[in-house]
Amino acid sequence: MKIKPLDDRILIEPLEEVESKTSSGIIIPDTAKEKPRVGIVIAVGTDEDLQSKIKVGDKVLFAKYGGEEIEMNGKEYRIVSRSDILAVIED
Amino acid sequence: MKIKPLDDRILIEPLEEVESKTSSGIIIPDTAKEKPRVGIVIAVGTDEDLQSKIKVGDKVLFAKYGGEEIEMNGKEYRIVSRSDILAVIED
Amino acid sequence: MKIKPLDDRILIEPLEEVESKTSSGIIIPDTAKEKPRVGIVIAVGTDEDLQSKIKVGDKVLFAKYGGEEIEMNGKEYRIVSRSDILAVIED
Amino acid sequence: MKIKPLDDRILIEPLEEVESKTSSGIIIPDTAKEKPRVGIVIAVGTDEDLQSKIKVGDKVLFAKYGGEEIEMNGKEYRIVSRSDILAVIED
Amino acid sequence: MKIKPLDDRILIEPLEEVESKTSSGIIIPDTAKEKPRVGIVIAVGTDEDLQSKIKVGDKVLFAKYGGEEIEMNGKEYRIVSRSDILAVIED
Amino acid sequence: MKIKPLDDRILIEPLEEVESKTSSGIIIPDTAKEKPRVGIVIAVGTDEDLQSKIKVGDKVLFAKYGGEEIEMNGKEYRIVSRSDILAVIED
Amino acid sequence: MKIKPLDDRILIEPLEEVESKTSSGIIIPDTAKEKPRVGIVIAVGTDEDLQSKIKVGDKVLFAKYGGEEIEMNGKEYRIVSRSDILAVIED
Repeated sequence: MKIKPLDDRILIEPLEEVESKTSSGIIIPDTAKEKPRVGIVIAVGTDEDLQSKIKVGDKVLFAKYGGEEIEMNGKEYRIVSRSDILAVIED
Repeated sequence: MKIKPLDDRILIEPLEEVESKTSSGIIIPDTAKEKPRVGIVIAVGTDEDLQSKIKVGDKVLFAKYGGEEIEMNGKEYRIVSRSDILAVIED
Repeated sequence: MKIKPLDDRILIEPLEEVESKTSSGIIIPDTAKEKPRVGIVIAVGTDEDLQSKIKVGDKVLFAKYGGEEIEMNGKEYRIVSRSDILAVIED
Repeated sequence: MKIKPLDDRILIEPLEEVESKTSSGIIIPDTAKEKPRVGIVIAVGTDEDLQSKIKVGDKVLFAKYGGEEIEMNGKEYRIVSRSDILAVIED
Repeated sequence: MKIKPLDDRILIEPLEEVESKTSSGIIIPDTAKEKPRVGIVIAVGTDEDLQSKIKVGDKVLFAKYGGEEIEMNGKEYRIVSRSDILAVIED
Repeated sequence: MKIKPLDDRILIEPLEEVESKTSSGIIIPDTAKEKPRVGIVIAVGTDEDLQSKIKVGDKVLFAKYGGEEIEMNGKEYRIVSRSDILAVIED
Repeated sequence: MKIKPLDDRILIEPLEEVESKTSSGIIIPDTAKEKPRVGIVIAVGTDEDLQSKIKVGDKVLFAKYGGEEIEMNGKEYRIVSRSDILAVIED
């Protein structure tokens, strides 16, 4: 099964959220956890300008509550809009 | 009877929602069910750009509460807007 | 008396709502009745693009609470906007 | 005194609302009275496209609560926007 | 001191509101007084299209609560936006 | 330290508000004080059209609660948007 | 790890907020602290016009609650939109 997002949407596989610890080992409280998440781009929408900026395989930072959650083959994905993508991350 | 959607609307026959079970057999609670649904495109609106992206027979993922519900010949359909279509699914 | 809608408006004569029964004869509850309605186009607004898509005599599906209700010669009509028209129905 | 509406506004003299009776003589309850009203166009705004569609003397149907009420020489008028005009009525 | 409004703003000197009486001498209640007011244009904003439609010295009808009140030399003025001007009045 | 506003923003040094007295010496109540304020333009944003209309040193009238307050060298300034500027004042 | 903001976003490293004291040594109350903050631009989004106005290394003033907070290598950053940037500061 292959999902092809429409227009300016992007299919993302969110990466596991590593338990949040500061360098001193203190657990960050819940509210502080509502930060953007990191994910891998699985498919890019049909918009050509978007395709020139975001590629399949890109690691991206996206707004945590942006978009819609979907489930495929037992894994969770998100379909977000371009405006939910904050940045591309290069390791 | 044939329904021809206007402008950027799409007529969809939603597929039955298979009862949600995780691989471990646990029932997903109701709130988690408010995910996008899958349906088959029955008719595409008059917008030409839309017609180049969505075809009759396409299996699409659409926002669960998007659009309007209609009943024809005892079956339920939805007429949704382009912005309610998240992606095309290829098996 | 003749009513000529302005811009993107359409004058519709709503068809009687047949009492809603499912094939098994069960009455659909009230909330389920808030579905789009069917009507006949009596007049189309001055917008040229609209006139190329909607014709006098078309049977259309329109959002139930869209537009404004008017009464002429003892009959009820609705003046709706283009965005309230979901589809044209061909029998 | 002459009032020249600016841009897309239209000066209307609302016609008296005849007491609402159905053909069977039953009085329509108050809520049902919040329908569009009929008025005569007294002056059309400076917008050229508007002037090509609405003429002084036209009988128009306009949204009952649209625009602003003004009083001139003891008579009531309304200045409404183009979007408040639903249709032109030809007798 | 001279005030030169920016962009689409207009400086208005509101005319005194004559106590509201109908021809029969009945005082109009407060709610009915929330009508547009009349004022004299003192200065017109820098927008060229606006300058072609509204001139210094014009008597205008403007939305009563539109814009901002300012005080100069002990007199009250209003700076309103173009959209607050309903019409030009010619005596 | 020099502040260069971005796009359509303007840096303003608000002038002291002289205690409000009418010519009869009566203090204007608090609500009446929520009027536009006067300030001196310290820097104009990068927008070229804005730069052609507002100059450094101009005395301007601006919406009292518009923009953001900043402190530099112990003095208070405001950075407001073009839409917060009502007029330029010439003495 | 390198973060490349998308479109009109900017990655900022906020500077420490020096404890707020007025010249007389009085502590400014909390509400007064909700002022814009200063930060250093770490990366500029893909928008070309933005890149011509904001450069890496610029010290900028940005709306305190604008954008999203992210954490990299134990340091806090913000990704803000162009509209959250008030001004560039030159020392």
